[in-house]
Amino acid sequence: MQFIGPIKITGPIVNDEIVVPLATLESPLWPSTDRGARVSMQSGGIHAVIVDERMARSVLVEAPDAKTAAQVLTCLSARKHDIERVAQETSRFAKFLDIHFQIVANLLFIRLEMKTGDAAGHNMVTKAADAVLHWILQECPELSYVSVSGNYCSDKKVSAVNGILGRGKNVIAEMTVPGKICRRYLKTTPARIVDLNIKKNLYGSIIAGGLRSANAHFANMLLGFYLATGQDAANIIEGSQGFVTAQVRGQDLYFAVTLPNVIVGTVGAGKGLAFVEENLAKLGCREERQPGENGRRLAVIAAATVLCGELSLLSALTNPGELMRAHERLER
Amino acid sequence: MQFIGPIKITGPIVNDEIVVPLATLESPLWPSTDRGARVSMQSGGIHAVIVDERMARSVLVEAPDAKTAAQVLTCLSARKHDIERVAQETSRFAKFLDIHFQIVANLLFIRLEMKTGDAAGHNMVTKAADAVLHWILQECPELSYVSVSGNYCSDKKVSAVNGILGRGKNVIAEMTVPGKICRRYLKTTPARIVDLNIKKNLYGSIIAGGLRSANAHFANMLLGFYLATGQDAANIIEGSQGFVTAQVRGQDLYFAVTLPNVIVGTVGAGKGLAFVEENLAKLGCREERQPGENGRRLAVIAAATVLCGELSLLSALTNPGELMRAHERLER
Amino acid sequence: MQFIGPIKITGPIVNDEIVVPLATLESPLWPSTDRGARVSMQSGGIHAVIVDERMARSVLVEAPDAKTAAQVLTCLSARKHDIERVAQETSRFAKFLDIHFQIVANLLFIRLEMKTGDAAGHNMVTKAADAVLHWILQECPELSYVSVSGNYCSDKKVSAVNGILGRGKNVIAEMTVPGKICRRYLKTTPARIVDLNIKKNLYGSIIAGGLRSANAHFANMLLGFYLATGQDAANIIEGSQGFVTAQVRGQDLYFAVTLPNVIVGTVGAGKGLAFVEENLAKLGCREERQPGENGRRLAVIAAATVLCGELSLLSALTNPGELMRAHERLER
Amino acid sequence: MQFIGPIKITGPIVNDEIVVPLATLESPLWPSTDRGARVSMQSGGIHAVIVDERMARSVLVEAPDAKTAAQVLTCLSARKHDIERVAQETSRFAKFLDIHFQIVANLLFIRLEMKTGDAAGHNMVTKAADAVLHWILQECPELSYVSVSGNYCSDKKVSAVNGILGRGKNVIAEMTVPGKICRRYLKTTPARIVDLNIKKNLYGSIIAGGLRSANAHFANMLLGFYLATGQDAANIIEGSQGFVTAQVRGQDLYFAVTLPNVIVGTVGAGKGLAFVEENLAKLGCREERQPGENGRRLAVIAAATVLCGELSLLSALTNPGELMRAHERLER
Repeated sequence: MQFIGPIKITGPIVNDEIVVPLATLESPLWPSTDRGARVSMQSGGIHAVIVDERMARSVLVEAPDAKTAAQVLTCLSARKHDIERVAQETSRFAKFLDIHFQIVANLLFIRLEMKTGDAAGHNMVTKAADAVLHWILQECPELSYVSVSGNYCSDKKVSAVNGILGRGKNVIAEMTVPGKICRRYLKTTPARIVDLNIKKNLYGSIIAGGLRSANAHFANMLLGFYLATGQDAANIIEGSQGFVTAQVRGQDLYFAVTLPNVIVGTVGAGKGLAFVEENLAKLGCREERQPGENGRRLAVIAAATVLCGELSLLSALTNPGELMRAHERLER
Repeated sequence: MQFIGPIKITGPIVNDEIVVPLATLESPLWPSTDRGARVSMQSGGIHAVIVDERMARSVLVEAPDAKTAAQVLTCLSARKHDIERVAQETSRFAKFLDIHFQIVANLLFIRLEMKTGDAAGHNMVTKAADAVLHWILQECPELSYVSVSGNYCSDKKVSAVNGILGRGKNVIAEMTVPGKICRRYLKTTPARIVDLNIKKNLYGSIIAGGLRSANAHFANMLLGFYLATGQDAANIIEGSQGFVTAQVRGQDLYFAVTLPNVIVGTVGAGKGLAFVEENLAKLGCREERQPGENGRRLAVIAAATVLCGELSLLSALTNPGELMRAHERLER
Repeated sequence: MQFIGPIKITGPIVNDEIVVPLATLESPLWPSTDRGARVSMQSGGIHAVIVDERMARSVLVEAPDAKTAAQVLTCLSARKHDIERVAQETSRFAKFLDIHFQIVANLLFIRLEMKTGDAAGHNMVTKAADAVLHWILQECPELSYVSVSGNYCSDKKVSAVNGILGRGKNVIAEMTVPGKICRRYLKTTPARIVDLNIKKNLYGSIIAGGLRSANAHFANMLLGFYLATGQDAANIIEGSQGFVTAQVRGQDLYFAVTLPNVIVGTVGAGKGLAFVEENLAKLGCREERQPGENGRRLAVIAAATVLCGELSLLSALTNPGELMRAHERLER
Repeated sequence: MQFIGPIKITGPIVNDEIVVPLATLESPLWPSTDRGARVSMQSGGIHAVIVDERMARSVLVEAPDAKTAAQVLTCLSARKHDIERVAQETSRFAKFLDIHFQIVANLLFIRLEMKTGDAAGHNMVTKAADAVLHWILQECPELSYVSVSGNYCSDKKVSAVNGILGRGKNVIAEMTVPGKICRRYLKTTPARIVDLNIKKNLYGSIIAGGLRSANAHFANMLLGFYLATGQDAANIIEGSQGFVTAQVRGQDLYFAVTLPNVIVGTVGAGKGLAFVEENLAKLGCREERQPGENGRRLAVIAAATVLCGELSLLSALTNPGELMRAHERLER
C-alpha cells in the first residue's frame, strides 16, 4: 500500500484535497499516478460528477414457450408497482429504481435495479431479486425457476448491458490542464495527448475488438483503489469499461474520464478490516452524512484517481522510450 | 487469505493434490470453491492441459497515408526474420513466436508475440517491442512513432483479440463427476447443471452483450488466486473472458472450463513478498524445473481452482434460495 | 424472386398459411427455406408473437464540460413530458415511447424511441428527433449541435444497444416438430439439431467474437424477404443479431428464433413499386386494418421465414456432406 | 438502379474515372454519394489499396474430451502441409493461405483460409473445408463430425474474428480534399468533419456497444453496390464493420475508409444476369486480366463508393437540418 497525492477534487460531491491509498504490485503505478495528482494541484483540480447510480440483479425464469413468456411479460409489465413493493420490503436502505425484461424464446430475464445507499449493493439487490423471484413464481404458476442470477445483471463479467442500463455509479471526472503545466509536469503537449488518445484509446480499442471501452489502463488504478478500500475488486471488470476524452482548448488540455460502472461501497463485506477502516477514514468516508453520500464520495475519489493515472501514462507514452525506462528504473 | 482443497489435478503438467490459497473479501467464495475441490477428490480429479502460451504487445506507428502504410506492411512482412532477431536479442528467456499487423488508414498496429518462460512477461515483451519499434523507425523513415502500446495488445482491457490471437496461457480444465457425487456433494443433478449452463452462461451472457465470455464468476476465483500468488490481478479482465462446458454423459456430468487468457508467472514483479513465496512454494512452483514449467504449473492450478468455484456456484444456483442463504449465513 | 411455402403461422397476429416471396441470388436458399415451410405445414405451424416495437434515433449535442452536461441531463430528465409533446407534434402516426441518455464527458447522446405504425419509421423518428433537437438547443443555450444522428440509434450498424433498448419489432417465432417429421423431412433427429445449435450457434458465435448473435444464417432469409417486400435491406445488419433456441421435448423438437430487431414497414420508401405492392398484397399486408397491424403482420411473416430457413440449414449441417452436395447441385 | 459518378480512383489496382451503379430504395443515397464522387473529381481522386485478401470457412469437430482435442491440435499443427495439399486439390483457382484453431473444452474449430481468385469464394472454400474435414476425420478417428461450418468462419454474422484474421478483401481508400472544395461542394470545413467523426463514429459507436465498427452508414453504399453487381448482399454485415479516419492537414481534409471485409467477386453465383454483366462490364471488370485482378478491381471500386457516400453524409450532418430537408425533398 502506498499513498499518492493529494489530488485536488471539486464538484458537488467532493471539494477537497485528498491523499489516496493504492494497493498494487505494479510499483511504477504509484509515481505515475502521483504525477497526475500533482497536475491536479497545479490545474484548478479535477471536477467530478455522478450522473447515475444503481445496482442490478437479473433473475431468470422460463415458461413452457414464447407464447406464454410473452403473456407473462405483458402481465408483469402492468404490475411494476407490485414488484416495486416486493423489492422494497426487503431492505430499509435500498430503493427500487427500475425493471427491465428480455425474452429469448421461452426464457424470461428480469433485471431489477435499485439504489443501495452506501453499500455497493450486491447482496441488497440479490435479496430483493430473490423476493421478487419468489413472488413472480407464485403469481405466475406457468413459470419455472431457472436461476436467481441470469447473467443479464451482469456481475464481474464483460457486457454492454451494464453501460447501457447502468450498474454502479456512473462517474465523470474532468480537468483542464494549462499547456505550461502539461509541458513542465507531463513532458508533453495537449496536442500530443489528444492525438495519442484518438489513435490508441479509440482506434486501438476498436480494432482489438473492444466493447464499450476506450482507455489505456483504468483497470490498474481501480484495482489498487478497490483493494485499498475493501471493495470486491473483481468489479474492476465492468469498471474498466470506460472512456477517455481529450481535447485541445486554446493552449490547454481538456482531459476527462467517464466511468459508467464504478461499483464501490463504504459499508458491507470487507469493510471491518483495520487497514480498510483507516483508509476510508483518511478519505473522509467515515463522516456522518446522509445515506449514500459516503459511497458517492468514494466513487468520485476513485474516478479522480483513475484520471490521474490515465493522464500520466498517456503523457509518458507520447515520449518514445519513457515507459520502458520507468519500468526498468522502478522495478529493480 | 484462506486455503481451499486439496484439489486433485491430473494431466501432463500437474499430477498432484494441491491445497490452494485464495485471497478474497467475499467470504462465501472459500467454502464454495472448497466444495468443488472435494468433488475433484471424489471424481478422479481435474484433468488440465495448456494449448497455447504467449505474451503480446502491440506498438503503434503511423505513415503519411494508407498508401505508404500498405507499402511498409509489405516490406515488414517480408522481414519477419529481422524482426525476430531484434526481438530475440532483448532477452535470454523470451522466445519470439509471431507478429500480426492491422492497418487503419495511415495507422499501423504491430502485435509482437513471445513465449516468456516463467514470467507473465509484460515487461519482457514490452522491452522486445521497444527494440522492434526502434528498429522499424530506423528502417522505415517514412514512419513516425505513436505509442509503444497501441491497445491492440491488449493489456487489462476487454477485447476479442486476446482470445483469437492468444495472450497468456490458454488452459482447459475438465472433470467427469459421477451422478452420485453430483447429488451428494453438489445437491443437484448433471442434467440441471447442463441446463443452467446453457440458459445462464450461454444465452444470458449473449443477451447481456458479452464478448467471448460464457461463465458465472471466473473473475472471483482468478482474483483470489492472483492476489495470493503475487500476480498483476488487473489481468483478471482478460482472464474472465472464458467458457464453461457442461454435458450429460450417461449418469455423469462432464464439466470443463476453457480459459484462453490466464496471465500468470512465478518470477517477476510481486514475487519476492513473503506470503507470495510461501504460497508459490506450497503450490510446488518453487521447484527446480525447465524454464516455463513452474509458470505453466501455476496456470493449470489457477484453471482447476476456477473449475471448482464455477461448478460449485452453478450447483448452488440450481436450487432456489441456496445462494441467498449461503451469503446470509457466511457474511454475518 | 421465388415463392416458398406456404408457411403455416399461428398466433395473435397471423393465423394463416402464407406463401412468401424471397429475392436472392443464392439459389439453394429457396428449396432449403421451402423445406422448413413444409415442416411448418406438417407440425401444427409456427406460433409467432411480438414482444416490443419501436424505432429509435439518437441526437448528439455537446456541453462545454461534463459538469454542464450533467446539469442538462438532470434538467431534461425532469422535462420528459415537454420532449414527448415536441416529438408528438411532428407526426399523426408516431407515438412517443421513451427517451434514454448517455453522457461521455461533455457529449450528451439523447435516444428518442417512438412507435411508428405501419412504417419502419426511420424518417418519422428522424423528423421527431430533429424537432426535439431544435427544442433542446433553444431551451439549453449552453449546448451546441453536433449531429442529428449520434450512432447511439443505431441504424444499419452492429450494436448492443438495439437489442437491449429495442429497435424495430422484437419477434419470436416457435414451432414444435414431431420427431417423425424431423426424420422424414429434415433427415435428422431433434437431439442432433439441439446439439448442433449449442456447439455451432452458441459456442461458435461466442468464440468468433460475436455480439448478441447466435444463429447460422438469419441474414440470408432477411435479405431475401426485405428485398422482396421493399424494405431498406441494409437493416439486415441489426436484424441478423438474433438467437436460435432448440430443445428436445419428449420425442419432439422445440425450435424457436428470437429476432429483437426486425425493421420492416408496409408504407414508406420503396413501397410504391409494382412487385412490392404485389408481394405485400399476397402476404395479406394490403388489407384495411388498424394502424400498425399490417406492419406487425409483415414482421411476423419475416420471422417465420427466418425460422424455416434456419431449421432447414441446421438440419442439413447435421449430415456430413449434405450442404456441399446441395450447393453443387443447385448452383450449376 | 442509378449511376453515380464518375469517381476518380488512383492506385496500384484502379487508375480510372468510374461510373458506379447503385441499386437502392433509399433515393437520397444517389445524390449524396454522387456529391462525394464529384469531390473525388475535384480533389486528385481517391487512392485505394488492398492489404489482404482471403476467404475463410471453419469446420467443427469434437473429441471425447479436451485432453484428446489438445493432442489432435498438436498433431494437426504439425501437419499443415498435408492440410494444405488436401485443400489445394479441390480447386485450380483457390490457393491455401493459412489455418487457425480454437478449442473450447472438447470442441475443435478449424478455420481454413484461402485466396480465391476472382470469386468471392464461399463455395471454393467450403469445398476445400469439406475435403479437409473428411481427411481429418479419417486421420484422427478419435474425432467426430459436428459441422462443416462452425460459425468461426464467420459468414454474414457480426464477429470480431473476420477483422482480426481476415475475410474478404481488406481495402483502404483515402482522399485529400482541399479546404476550398470542402466548403464549396460539401458546405462544411475539414475541422467540422474531423470533429463529427470523432464524436459520432468513434464515441457514438463505442457507447452503442459496437464491435470493430466506426462509421455512419457503410452498409448503405455496400448494399447498393452489391445488389448492382450480383454479389451476395448479406455479406454487407461483415462489410459494414469498418472505420472512418478524418484528419485536418493544413487547410485540407484527409479522409479515409478502412473496410477489412469486402466480400465481392466477378465470377460465381449471381453473375450471369444481364444487368449484372452489363454493370461489371461498365466497371471494367470484364477485361482479360490475371486471375484475381477483376475481383480486386471490384473491391476497390466498392470501397471508393463507400468513401463518397460516407464523406457526403458526414458533411451533411455537420449542418443542422440538412439531412432532414434532403430526405423530405427527395422522398416525395
